[in-house]
Amino acid sequence: VNLEVAFTPAELPKGGAAGRTVVVVDVLRATSSIVQALVSGARRIIPTATVEEAVRLAEELGRADVRLCGERDVLPIPGFDLGNSPEHFTPERVAGHTLVMSTTNGTSALLAASGSELCLVGALLNAGAIARRLAADGRDGVVLCAGREGRFALEDAYCAGILLRELRELRADLQTNDAGRAAFRMAGGRSGALAALRRSAAARRIREQGLEQDVQFCAQIDRHDAVPGFDGHRIELTSPE
Amino acid sequence: VNLEVAFTPAELPKGGAAGRTVVVVDVLRATSSIVQALVSGARRIIPTATVEEAVRLAEELGRADVRLCGERDVLPIPGFDLGNSPEHFTPERVAGHTLVMSTTNGTSALLAASGSELCLVGALLNAGAIARRLAADGRDGVVLCAGREGRFALEDAYCAGILLRELRELRADLQTNDAGRAAFRMAGGRSGALAALRRSAAARRIREQGLEQDVQFCAQIDRHDAVPGFDGHRIELTSPE
Repeated sequence: VNLEVAFTPAELPKGGAAGRTVVVVDVLRATSSIVQALVSGARRIIPTATVEEAVRLAEELGRADVRLCGERDVLPIPGFDLGNSPEHFTPERVAGHTLVMSTTNGTSALLAASGSELCLVGALLNAGAIARRLAADGRDGVVLCAGREGRFALEDAYCAGILLRELRELRADLQTNDAGRAAFRMAGGRSGALAALRRSAAARRIREQGLEQDVQFCAQIDRHDAVPGFDGHRIELTSPE
Repeated sequence: VNLEVAFTPAELPKGGAAGRTVVVVDVLRATSSIVQALVSGARRIIPTATVEEAVRLAEELGRADVRLCGERDVLPIPGFDLGNSPEHFTPERVAGHTLVMSTTNGTSALLAASGSELCLVGALLNAGAIARRLAADGRDGVVLCAGREGRFALEDAYCAGILLRELRELRADLQTNDAGRAAFRMAGGRSGALAALRRSAAARRIREQGLEQDVQFCAQIDRHDAVPGFDGHRIELTSPE
């Protein structure tokens, strides 16, 4: 099985998502929040490119049933119900609700992945579950790192490396590309997750805003056995095919 | 001093090259060939985006004085004088001549760097010389990896890491970005250069074409004390300011 890595959405091979599984990764913090929200019982999550689109969609769906969430430059969006801190997505706040989410980098990575055979949402929180799904499907895939404003992000590359390492435990025939080889070596071991995340520019920015606990939360590997799937419109928990 | 890394031309910060030194790196093989050609006495090297442009320019300059060189998908271009194997750029072949060069990735990286305060051409062959120049100038910089068709390339990332390591020996105040931190760790030591290059997709492709000796040549760190500069039109050896 071949699992390549794209460090930025621009590196996704042109037309290359067709016929392949794409795993979108934005560890700090969008895909971590998505995993946590769905595990907490959110019914579905609809990502939007802009804040305005999120507000409009919430009105259409009925504001009372919707939880608006997301961030701009790390901070919560005024008037929204939740920011982008994964531990805030508790059952009390999100169970049974539709979440409409707009984040700086994660959303555009998700939208770049449309056109893939199957799009999964990955984070360290569910790395093992994603690897097991990929191993079972046996389809070729691409880990699409959201990156940071179109540039390489250390935390997403580390997560891609952990996904490759977990998958190689299950599939000895694993192949990858140059970015995958670099990510694999970067993710020397699971014990280094928090240190690896803390080195990233994103973690520094989050810490500056007093949200250091978010980094610790997102550094937990395999907290959940959940595999969210994105159909181009909404994200929901999936079960194996 | 701040030396960032862009793993692909698309990651060069918008407008960010202005006021900064850009070091263009295409280790396998364009920037290695450029360093070797200039050390062998080539008068100047003019990179062109297309083969047609190279041929036209050679006619304008006078075909007898020009050496046409470059590659498409690793192989020499029919009718050209030289391919892209650095050890072929001997004094016998290039001394005193203008080289017009067109390569798949290196050329577009050079053109992406126009607009920078100063553009240098780096490879493992002249890594130490580049680092000494950056340290002496004290200007902020970006290592621009050519990559491979717009995607991350292992050999260029390794070279960026070696440049950072050499610069940190000279400037304890060195700062970098996420890509730089990843590259720094990738380039664990100078002794691993050949092994690192051989892991890359580019090296595999070069070996398939029977040019494995090119990879060995390009893996030599600090063979030359030469710093080529690119003024947006031509590449020539530079001396310190």
